[in-house]
Amino acid sequence: MATCQNNEAHAALKNSLMTRVPPLLTDLYQFTMAYAYWRAGRHREPAVFELFFRDNPFGGGFSLFAGLHDCLMFLENFAFSDEDVGYLRSVLPANTDPDFFLYLKELDCSSVSVSAVPEGSVVFARVPLLEVSGPLAVVQLLETSLLCLVNYASLVCSNAARFRLAAGPRRRLMEMGLRRAQGPDGGLTASRYTYIGGFDLTSNALAGRLFGIPVAGTIAHSYVTSFSSLEEVWPQTLVPVGGDSSIDFISLVKGWVSSVCQLLGSKTNLIREGELAAFLSYAIAYPHNFLPVIDSYSVTCSGLLCFCAVALALCELKYQPLGVRLDSGDLCRQSLEVRRVFKECSKKFSVPQFESLVIVGSNSVSEQSLAELNKKDNEIDVVGVGTHLVTCTSQPSLGCVYKLIEVRNQPRMKMSEDPEKSTLPGRKSVYRLLDADGHPQMDLICLSEEAAPTAGVSLNCYPLVQDTGSVQSITPAQVTSLRLDVFSCGQITYPISSASESREHAQMSLQRLHPHHKRLQGAHNYTVALSERLNALISDIRRGNSKGSNFLLSN
Amino acid sequence: MATCQNNEAHAALKNSLMTRVPPLLTDLYQFTMAYAYWRAGRHREPAVFELFFRDNPFGGGFSLFAGLHDCLMFLENFAFSDEDVGYLRSVLPANTDPDFFLYLKELDCSSVSVSAVPEGSVVFARVPLLEVSGPLAVVQLLETSLLCLVNYASLVCSNAARFRLAAGPRRRLMEMGLRRAQGPDGGLTASRYTYIGGFDLTSNALAGRLFGIPVAGTIAHSYVTSFSSLEEVWPQTLVPVGGDSSIDFISLVKGWVSSVCQLLGSKTNLIREGELAAFLSYAIAYPHNFLPVIDSYSVTCSGLLCFCAVALALCELKYQPLGVRLDSGDLCRQSLEVRRVFKECSKKFSVPQFESLVIVGSNSVSEQSLAELNKKDNEIDVVGVGTHLVTCTSQPSLGCVYKLIEVRNQPRMKMSEDPEKSTLPGRKSVYRLLDADGHPQMDLICLSEEAAPTAGVSLNCYPLVQDTGSVQSITPAQVTSLRLDVFSCGQITYPISSASESREHAQMSLQRLHPHHKRLQGAHNYTVALSERLNALISDIRRGNSKGSNFLLSN
Repeated sequence: MATCQNNEAHAALKNSLMTRVPPLLTDLYQFTMAYAYWRAGRHREPAVFELFFRDNPFGGGFSLFAGLHDCLMFLENFAFSDEDVGYLRSVLPANTDPDFFLYLKELDCSSVSVSAVPEGSVVFARVPLLEVSGPLAVVQLLETSLLCLVNYASLVCSNAARFRLAAGPRRRLMEMGLRRAQGPDGGLTASRYTYIGGFDLTSNALAGRLFGIPVAGTIAHSYVTSFSSLEEVWPQTLVPVGGDSSIDFISLVKGWVSSVCQLLGSKTNLIREGELAAFLSYAIAYPHNFLPVIDSYSVTCSGLLCFCAVALALCELKYQPLGVRLDSGDLCRQSLEVRRVFKECSKKFSVPQFESLVIVGSNSVSEQSLAELNKKDNEIDVVGVGTHLVTCTSQPSLGCVYKLIEVRNQPRMKMSEDPEKSTLPGRKSVYRLLDADGHPQMDLICLSEEAAPTAGVSLNCYPLVQDTGSVQSITPAQVTSLRLDVFSCGQITYPISSASESREHAQMSLQRLHPHHKRLQGAHNYTVALSERLNALISDIRRGNSKGSNFLLSN
Repeated sequence: MATCQNNEAHAALKNSLMTRVPPLLTDLYQFTMAYAYWRAGRHREPAVFELFFRDNPFGGGFSLFAGLHDCLMFLENFAFSDEDVGYLRSVLPANTDPDFFLYLKELDCSSVSVSAVPEGSVVFARVPLLEVSGPLAVVQLLETSLLCLVNYASLVCSNAARFRLAAGPRRRLMEMGLRRAQGPDGGLTASRYTYIGGFDLTSNALAGRLFGIPVAGTIAHSYVTSFSSLEEVWPQTLVPVGGDSSIDFISLVKGWVSSVCQLLGSKTNLIREGELAAFLSYAIAYPHNFLPVIDSYSVTCSGLLCFCAVALALCELKYQPLGVRLDSGDLCRQSLEVRRVFKECSKKFSVPQFESLVIVGSNSVSEQSLAELNKKDNEIDVVGVGTHLVTCTSQPSLGCVYKLIEVRNQPRMKMSEDPEKSTLPGRKSVYRLLDADGHPQMDLICLSEEAAPTAGVSLNCYPLVQDTGSVQSITPAQVTSLRLDVFSCGQITYPISSASESREHAQMSLQRLHPHHKRLQGAHNYTVALSERLNALISDIRRGNSKGSNFLLSN
């Protein structure tokens, strides 16, 4: 079913997923419950769970749904190994019937069906994103793994979308958070889903290999500080583009150091020889890819001067240097100074491309500091983001839940002491109602047996807000069904899209959303509402009138 | 070398680690730098990096160091696959010399040595925790993976230690954060390191299997809400402990429902039949392990009454019910009410063990809410913690860094525009100085060639504080070396301890720490200081006087 670029890529992804998410990576109580169902002969009863989150993350007005492909691959390969079952035998209570372990050994998802919102879609709190139906014990066992796969993927994807909005469409964004992520797989997941959320590049090589995301990177401070003298530069020559004999590159660069210092009125005796050697050596190794970090010592006294000298020498040999990276201090102020120097060099030495060299900035960039970039003068073209992006510092968990909504075709509802923790009973359809401009206007949650709303026809509904109960009338200009059938009889029935296809879908989905729902601060609330029939079912169950929500009337 | 419980467990851990952390899981720039070193013939130069963090997490006075064992297994197995190298060939610049890829294929850590603080030790900001030495290109390539393995492990381990301190020694703590963790491996890592940090139990079955951590769990709300009628209970009988004929357990429990309602003046018609059926069914499946969640509908009107009836029936058949779990609302208030009811039942029905049934509480528990538990009246024996523990909401990243400190036996230092981002040059030894009471008093960072400080002998040092430079004199009562040699010539040279051994070490290390450094709020600063010689080296390098930190004096 998969329409990935090729089967090999799909196999690599599947392997990676299966080793990262074996079915034993779940809560123990899933097994004690499965046993209790099995013991009571209820394990094959048809049951339905749904997955949703209760609040849009980061105090915002929307979220992106992500993690679906991982869920599908997990379901496709769900099976316990002999070691898993052996371990469970050792930790479940001693009186567990041994036949239960034979049952576990044979479990798979061949009787499970899933409908879901497509990967990368704009979604909202309380809307059921994933509906999982199948034998009670099996769909119960899937809970923790599915939550784990959707929770962080959707969170970090939504975070990336906010960074993208904060940065504006012009600036390129690079994810470089692997070293600060919550575990190795947190890093891998972040690289994939921040790309889908709107980032352009990642530093993560494995993410590049597994997901086909564009990767980038040149040098770190350690490379610069590892050099101390020009004697360490080797080879010392470079062949010009289109030329055939080597030029003494060190002498050439030394000449440019003098010229640049003279132009800028700088002192050569504050230039770090090691920094110049590092830039020289890197430029000789990768003359087409010269983009060093220039703040290992002092940007203005050394790093920038070394860069200009080496880059001008490269230009003289017909190479195209790329630019610089700033990694500390006031990025805005420094970028202005760097651009000013680039322009002076461009003019003085008649090197037009020098004006538009790339300036990369990376220094604990947060959503807020990115938004401030847009207000201050600066010349930063590419922003590298790590910690705040991948760990989602302002809200590190989305809090998805997975709730039972139907057993044996009877609706089920949890009524908690916290009204917030109550669930919506019964199997549902979810419709997105669009206004005349094509903007999503409301998500309407109906019982699955209800007819779909009709464009142009008014309907009554009950918005899910703090003071529920008040009816509202709405006439949609357009109606779309939010979920698709994605898994059936153990097979993925939905084309697995590549990371770049999901990214495109996410960006289109975001584009359709009205700007007032996308505000980073003070976004308008998007309406999620219940149909009249669903609302009536909830009232019935609360009153204990519904079949299947009996009170114990007599002993 | 590994002294794990058994080789099989070590192999399982290694496999898990290798699949989660392949060497390609790193930043692309590690490869461009490695190429530039290789191209310049510098790749085999001896180099030393060190790993540290800049601030103690969570605004606290200490941290726990963790992740070492993962690092060691990563190093032991470091090698690129043909697929890895093929991918790198496709993304590195086209002019990369093909022989470089042959070099990558043959790389391993057989020339790498590591000294490190033992897993689970109390550590402080700015102290080099890991020193990695070996061929320049190889130790550079290790950077991102080592950071990724130490960063989150140490962070979540330190977070767990704070939860442990907040909870006090009496209460048992259970980690149950898998579904809210940042990715599947975030969950697995959290289970291991929160246990080392002081938790007692985890819900994570895979963590139980891989790390031997005690696992626990019984039922969720979905199990309760999946039942609607007593007709779903099957089998309906139970054999008493030591007995040989089955008893009609439903009738027995119905009798107890009447007795309990009579005792408490409760109405049987508010009891949910489905909740009673769920408890009955679970108790019949696991009569020795009865600990249901009792807030699916209403604790006082239904859940608690159902529990008491089923548990008293179990007691009548000589089983020992375990207790209850509360998962919403005001846990303190509810636990007092639950205990009051347990005591009444115990007295009225002469069931002494009913008084001391376990009450588990779990509802978005944070460090702060845990600390407040200690101030309020409550009867909670076990606390289950998820989101706030595993995602470290108050500070989701530790910010470890990996810095070059020596190349070809010459000290290296990065002098940044941010003084905070400067590094400490040269190869070092780290000593922990203890006071007369055996409490750690200061960590002293010396150059490795210096003699160790002597107990009872005064020495001068330079504390690392904002206004550095002021000398301080100290006379330690006891001196210990903080780091050990843990890896040499491709081999782990340090006994890999089990999770429970590391946990014991962490708890001992914490016990030794003076209480004023362990305060969750307003902890005293622990002193980390430089030796006179290290301080002098830094001054020399800053002035450009040191060999290897040349300024470019002439062109």
